[in-house]
Amino acid sequence: MTQQTGVPETESIPGSQHVSEAQQNVEEQLVRNVLRSFDDCQDPRLKQLMQSLVTHLHNFIRDVRLTEAEWNKAIEFLTAVGHITDDRRQEFILLSDVFGASMQTINVNNEAPGDATEATVFGPFFVDDAPRIENGGDIAGAAPGEPCWIEGSVKDTDGNPVPNARIEVWEADEDGFYDVQYDDQRVSGRAHLYSDEDGNYRFWGLTPTPYPIPHDGPVGKMLEAVGRSPMRASHLHFMVTKPGLRTLVTHIFVRGDELLKYDTVFGVKESLIKDFVQQDAGTPTPDGRDLGERTWARTRFDIVLPPAAD
Amino acid sequence: MTQQTGVPETESIPGSQHVSEAQQNVEEQLVRNVLRSFDDCQDPRLKQLMQSLVTHLHNFIRDVRLTEAEWNKAIEFLTAVGHITDDRRQEFILLSDVFGASMQTINVNNEAPGDATEATVFGPFFVDDAPRIENGGDIAGAAPGEPCWIEGSVKDTDGNPVPNARIEVWEADEDGFYDVQYDDQRVSGRAHLYSDEDGNYRFWGLTPTPYPIPHDGPVGKMLEAVGRSPMRASHLHFMVTKPGLRTLVTHIFVRGDELLKYDTVFGVKESLIKDFVQQDAGTPTPDGRDLGERTWARTRFDIVLPPAAD
Repeated sequence: MTQQTGVPETESIPGSQHVSEAQQNVEEQLVRNVLRSFDDCQDPRLKQLMQSLVTHLHNFIRDVRLTEAEWNKAIEFLTAVGHITDDRRQEFILLSDVFGASMQTINVNNEAPGDATEATVFGPFFVDDAPRIENGGDIAGAAPGEPCWIEGSVKDTDGNPVPNARIEVWEADEDGFYDVQYDDQRVSGRAHLYSDEDGNYRFWGLTPTPYPIPHDGPVGKMLEAVGRSPMRASHLHFMVTKPGLRTLVTHIFVRGDELLKYDTVFGVKESLIKDFVQQDAGTPTPDGRDLGERTWARTRFDIVLPPAAD
Repeated sequence: MTQQTGVPETESIPGSQHVSEAQQNVEEQLVRNVLRSFDDCQDPRLKQLMQSLVTHLHNFIRDVRLTEAEWNKAIEFLTAVGHITDDRRQEFILLSDVFGASMQTINVNNEAPGDATEATVFGPFFVDDAPRIENGGDIAGAAPGEPCWIEGSVKDTDGNPVPNARIEVWEADEDGFYDVQYDDQRVSGRAHLYSDEDGNYRFWGLTPTPYPIPHDGPVGKMLEAVGRSPMRASHLHFMVTKPGLRTLVTHIFVRGDELLKYDTVFGVKESLIKDFVQQDAGTPTPDGRDLGERTWARTRFDIVLPPAAD
């Protein structure tokens, strides 16, 4: 598997220069045997996946000269991840997220042609039946946080406005929690609306704030052991659907957030960082809404959707 | 990570030629970001393991252009593996075994210098406090199967006999089960003995027979989906310890067994395949034991231990 070039190498591995030719032969013969074991697989894609996985897995073991104690630790770690995973908590997805594997899978499947808007991770907090609001409505509900005016356009990659696109938005409150993380059945910080006849949309939400991924389990322990933060950069989720155009799952991020470089699931893309302009209390709002003595913020997110795949 | 050469490539991947330069840059930037996230790790070995794992994991995702549906299936599979794993059943080890990862880790850590005996997988059926037998004793206990005389020598890599080496042996019965797989607390098919003053050993056991790994769980389903057998080649386990010499964990296999090429955990090495010579009923036994009308078999396994690492 040498198609990929330019991927940065990790530091050189002291042990691997000392592998004798005889030992290399033993290791390579094993790889050949494992690859051959999938020869009878009747599903060509499954066979390709398995053989590629085996190749990369064995290269990892051989490159780092994995010790038996390290192998045991890895088995213990996976066992702990398996045991904490249940219907409400998916620690394997978390693991995939913090290794950037979820984001890379998104990348591989969502090449953004031309000026199409880039995709990022879906996250675990989307809910199917979020309430509908009209354009200019408020998604916050009872969620605490600073009001934020979000507006923008939906266009196709030829520059034509896209009316009637369904726009789902969801976000955490200022305490860092989504409504589904509370026990009281509240619905807040989420809604859907439709772009108007000119392809424009606008709504009130909350200025996004940072929050940590669940880090009281094995993945959190791992992050701590390697000196990484469990925090996600502040963001607001979007999913935009329109028949004939490719569905977009993405977020926008807050320019200036110190966590942009350290988002623990690697969801940040430069093109998705937006100016959230702070407004003093008393500044007139775009729709004349009276916010009293409260500060607020505003941002713009113009969305471009490529054609759907055939 | 390009130190390893000569590893066979899997078939070429149709998708990967069509990746645009812009898309390649997106994917490579993500890999760089993930690698950088481990920069503050204070444990250099842990940092190396994580960065190498990330590199190989992302290369896999990019090489096969993993789809989001395939990623979801992988998460579901790992979740199922996690849920069936408990104190009595370790499906993650099984998974590592059937991908050859356990065997490759053994390989990496047990290079056999000169004529040293090669190592193979430990397996899950070793028990710490197996009974002691004298040289020439019988390990079978109440386990059903054909009697088999096993004898050999223990030497160091300079050819000197090694007296008083502790030899642990364990094996399945002719129904394919180890004693610990029964519910009745039996102890059979396992024991330990010591090499004599000339470094020789001998004992009665059972002629090894093939058996399947547990295959009623997710790993078994995966083997079925890819057209692989869950069977292990017939074998007898050894662990040999002697202070100053490297501990050997290995098996011997039965020459002529049809499963030698298809051992599902890839434990077979050519040097570990032994002649198990079948004996007609009534053939005089090496120690004069009267086996009545039963057939029996005999084999020889000469063991060579390298010096222990410093």
